Amino acid sequence: MKTSQYLLSTLTDYQVNSEILSDRLMMRSGMIRKLSSGIYYWLPTGVKVIEKLKSIIRKEMDSIGLIEFSSPLIQPMKLWKKSGRLDQYGEELFRINDRKSRPFILSPTNEESIIYLMKHEIQSYKQLPISLYQIRTKFRDELRPQFGIIRSKEFIMKDAYSFHTNLQSLQKTYEMMLDTYKRIFNRIGLDFRVILAENGFIGGNLSHEFRSNLKKKHSKLGWKVKKNFLKVKKQCSMNHIKIIFIKNGLNIKRIKTNQKSISEILKENNFLLKEMTKLIVVRASQESKYQFVAILMRLNDSINFYEIEKHVLIQKPMKIAQKKELSKIMNFKKFDFIDQFNEKIPIIADHRVKKILCPTIGLKIDEFYYLDSNFKMKSQNFKIYDFVKNLSENYLSQFYNENIEQIRKDEIEIGHIFQIGNKYSRAMNAFFQDERGERKLITMGCYGIGIGRVIAAIIEQNHDINGIVWPDVLAPFQVAILPINMYKFNIVRKVSNDLYCDLKKNNFEVIFDDRQIGFSKMLKDIELIGVPNILIINKENLLSNNIIYRNRSNHSEEMIHLSCTLSFLKKLFIKNLIKETEL
Amino acid sequence: MKTSQYLLSTLTDYQVNSEILSDRLMMRSGMIRKLSSGIYYWLPTGVKVIEKLKSIIRKEMDSIGLIEFSSPLIQPMKLWKKSGRLDQYGEELFRINDRKSRPFILSPTNEESIIYLMKHEIQSYKQLPISLYQIRTKFRDELRPQFGIIRSKEFIMKDAYSFHTNLQSLQKTYEMMLDTYKRIFNRIGLDFRVILAENGFIGGNLSHEFRSNLKKKHSKLGWKVKKNFLKVKKQCSMNHIKIIFIKNGLNIKRIKTNQKSISEILKENNFLLKEMTKLIVVRASQESKYQFVAILMRLNDSINFYEIEKHVLIQKPMKIAQKKELSKIMNFKKFDFIDQFNEKIPIIADHRVKKILCPTIGLKIDEFYYLDSNFKMKSQNFKIYDFVKNLSENYLSQFYNENIEQIRKDEIEIGHIFQIGNKYSRAMNAFFQDERGERKLITMGCYGIGIGRVIAAIIEQNHDINGIVWPDVLAPFQVAILPINMYKFNIVRKVSNDLYCDLKKNNFEVIFDDRQIGFSKMLKDIELIGVPNILIINKENLLSNNIIYRNRSNHSEEMIHLSCTLSFLKKLFIKNLIKETEL
Repeated sequence: MKTSQYLLSTLTDYQVNSEILSDRLMMRSGMIRKLSSGIYYWLPTGVKVIEKLKSIIRKEMDSIGLIEFSSPLIQPMKLWKKSGRLDQYGEELFRINDRKSRPFILSPTNEESIIYLMKHEIQSYKQLPISLYQIRTKFRDELRPQFGIIRSKEFIMKDAYSFHTNLQSLQKTYEMMLDTYKRIFNRIGLDFRVILAENGFIGGNLSHEFRSNLKKKHSKLGWKVKKNFLKVKKQCSMNHIKIIFIKNGLNIKRIKTNQKSISEILKENNFLLKEMTKLIVVRASQESKYQFVAILMRLNDSINFYEIEKHVLIQKPMKIAQKKELSKIMNFKKFDFIDQFNEKIPIIADHRVKKILCPTIGLKIDEFYYLDSNFKMKSQNFKIYDFVKNLSENYLSQFYNENIEQIRKDEIEIGHIFQIGNKYSRAMNAFFQDERGERKLITMGCYGIGIGRVIAAIIEQNHDINGIVWPDVLAPFQVAILPINMYKFNIVRKVSNDLYCDLKKNNFEVIFDDRQIGFSKMLKDIELIGVPNILIINKENLLSNNIIYRNRSNHSEEMIHLSCTLSFLKKLFIKNLIKETEL
Repeated sequence: MKTSQYLLSTLTDYQVNSEILSDRLMMRSGMIRKLSSGIYYWLPTGVKVIEKLKSIIRKEMDSIGLIEFSSPLIQPMKLWKKSGRLDQYGEELFRINDRKSRPFILSPTNEESIIYLMKHEIQSYKQLPISLYQIRTKFRDELRPQFGIIRSKEFIMKDAYSFHTNLQSLQKTYEMMLDTYKRIFNRIGLDFRVILAENGFIGGNLSHEFRSNLKKKHSKLGWKVKKNFLKVKKQCSMNHIKIIFIKNGLNIKRIKTNQKSISEILKENNFLLKEMTKLIVVRASQESKYQFVAILMRLNDSINFYEIEKHVLIQKPMKIAQKKELSKIMNFKKFDFIDQFNEKIPIIADHRVKKILCPTIGLKIDEFYYLDSNFKMKSQNFKIYDFVKNLSENYLSQFYNENIEQIRKDEIEIGHIFQIGNKYSRAMNAFFQDERGERKLITMGCYGIGIGRVIAAIIEQNHDINGIVWPDVLAPFQVAILPINMYKFNIVRKVSNDLYCDLKKNNFEVIFDDRQIGFSKMLKDIELIGVPNILIINKENLLSNNIIYRNRSNHSEEMIHLSCTLSFLKKLFIKNLIKETEL
């Protein structure tokens, strides 16, 4: 590709206005442009990086037997009513009516649509297990789109779904996906960690989150980073929680958390994490006389939907109550609102709460956390259930070595895998026939990777003062040719052109800067974009048939003989290929 | 891929209910499934075909220097207001509000969003010409989604846009795209024709449409086609026009056209095509005292927007009036409504109308055509302009050999290319600086290919009684392995498995039917899906180390020695590769 025929679209630091480093660098290097809040174009350089990442993910998915499919983006609203997620997603779902006023939604994820499909395609246990995936656009009507493509209204996600006869089969695929995700993120050189996470609205009994930190990787070379880069990074908080109300004895405090993590605040106020409980308010079943039921459990435990939906008081499928609904019967402005619970909303507790001697209660309503250490558990007559038994520490350590960890605020979620179970197959009546001819609910898993977020995380971890330092496997171009004074010296022009054709013929992805501009502007653009290998051609060196090779990541330069250029580059790429296959 | 791990999802003819052959075969072969009216899943077999077509189009686009980008699917409504297309598209545009009630649309095409992007990226003539493309989902709220994926609410399109300093430069890219489109359709073996077309709402002064007929290609082998296939085909009419009101002298007739083409109806009622004129009602400029202006021109002529927008009475950019607007000032139920025109809406005529001795007037309002042979042109005092001068036959024959042709009803549009000019750059103030430093409007072209429609057309043209007969370049799998009684005879199982691994290792796209079912069901499925090359392995032939090769398209079978299978297939593919590169 010649720059004169390419949409390079680089910008200076002064031309962009963004609070986060990856967004700044994506704008500056001409990868993205904003059309509207949370809505972005991907320019050619951005598309090239996306395609490389997609190709790596595709190969890994194909290699473990997943099949690519494609789900509609517009989906009938009734599917989402059936699963109960229409209310749970609430205003985050883009809603749309067609010309005949039939209601649809724009899909943020595809559990509903895929189980509706599989319900008709799967008849027998012989067809199971089977796993499908796609890499496509998703939509979410974010309240506050921010951090560039990290939290946007329109985003690209790899979403995969697996279908099984039982939990053991799901467990096997789940572990295979966990390994494959690790392999993918390792292949692109991402610094990440896997944590046990809450399933949230997705449902199910176990999930792992892949989180990538936004700190630059430790560099032995010690590049100095501009101060404003660092400043930008500090401002970036991924924390949803905005305000915490704390009632400690009789005092009430209001704390903003945008600078602190929840565990920091707990510490400062002498709350012990292991003493913390949480209340999750869900809709009550129609058979009960209540509107809502509150589930009391330890803060760090996750709900096991299998168990909880067996409870007679709880509506199936489980639906978490919205603030709107709750505020009709409760007064959140009163900080002793916990007392209102036993009057209006019965509390049922998990058995693990019993172990807590002096519990503090927490309630999360939308973006607010309410903590109350004046809460006396023993004085109340809770009914005790075993809602988290499958998530007991013994059970977990049986399969995984990770412990339940707190989410750190300098990280973003880049992937999430879920053991869903039969939440959706139950809602949609998706059965298969087992070996004995009995109809059973299909067991399901789902697995996501945020494409844009992975790219943003890579940039956060790999950059220097000059711009992005792509790992070879994701670089938009492998090699750049920068001629000095090509329009003045014919020999520079000829050699550059010949080299360009030669590299293209040998399937190198090469960008040739043929603009009539100075060398320093060329180098600035190419280093900003992050091309890993740069060839500099000038008249002086050509006298001895030499050109300069410059390494983008460590800025080292060396002279190579023109006739050896091809073999030099090939050797480089083979070296990197070996490094990668060793993973 | 082993069928046991694949979502084959074939259906029998009785299981599908569709009026069009390609839709039936796509459903039956497990390529697509319907989620809702006009909304489809693409199953794995369908995705494989799409990906092959996308890859061919990508290679051709890249080879002529187009660059891939990606435009948002959700776009601010104000962009579409600015271009004037919000009203023109009317109810076909999906409209959506975000949670803050800001209005957006789901893009059916991207002229607005791309010129808005380029307006900021293009400063100088040095950056022009430049061309971008993408292959992504588009949306259209079809009044009557039908014919499977041919007319659907959500569809995949390749859309490309070129940007120029002047018309000559646009002309050059336009001709290159015309050639490239021909090459793409030839590469996949599609029977198609190119016709000069009207630009419609897109705007501009010249466009070509690529149309593909829905008739099966002439087959020398004379396969008998089931009667219900033929019946299905006859029902398939692509004609938008539903009702024609004809006033011939004093009589008024109402004719349904779903079985007939407009030219057939004209013929039956003694209207001569060359005597036909049409009225296009557009909004009047603010400076004029009128609300609307009607443009009178020959039926077969297209508007030259460059010329028409120079007219003082006409609003810039030109906006076609909607029925809603018109019915406020006109009574369409009166069939002499043409007389209302000179009173309320002034008529301005193109000079080519003068040549018509006894004109008949036609007015198309939404889906209705009104024809009036009682219309006396000479009695009216029309002002004559030269609105189609650039489209004079001389001008056209200068560049192209095709003539303006009528659209045939047994065809569908598969591609369309447009010389837009500066309709959108004017609406959005998109300028560049020319050699002399003057600001000038960017000149634009746009180029579309309907991915789903191309696939449907290929199937309409390539099928037999057993199913789809894919051209090699689009087949979801290149080779199928069908073992007979593999679970009874170990030798069949071993040979089939080894062959499968061997072919995979040699990069063949192979499907191995390992299901525990009879051979005839296997063959039925594989021929329905249309795998071009089939290897049949049974115990009897293995005694002499032979297997059967079956050709999907002509059903011929031959015995090949097991040890020669690989070289046999390689030779086949090289032969086809040579055939293709000769195009």
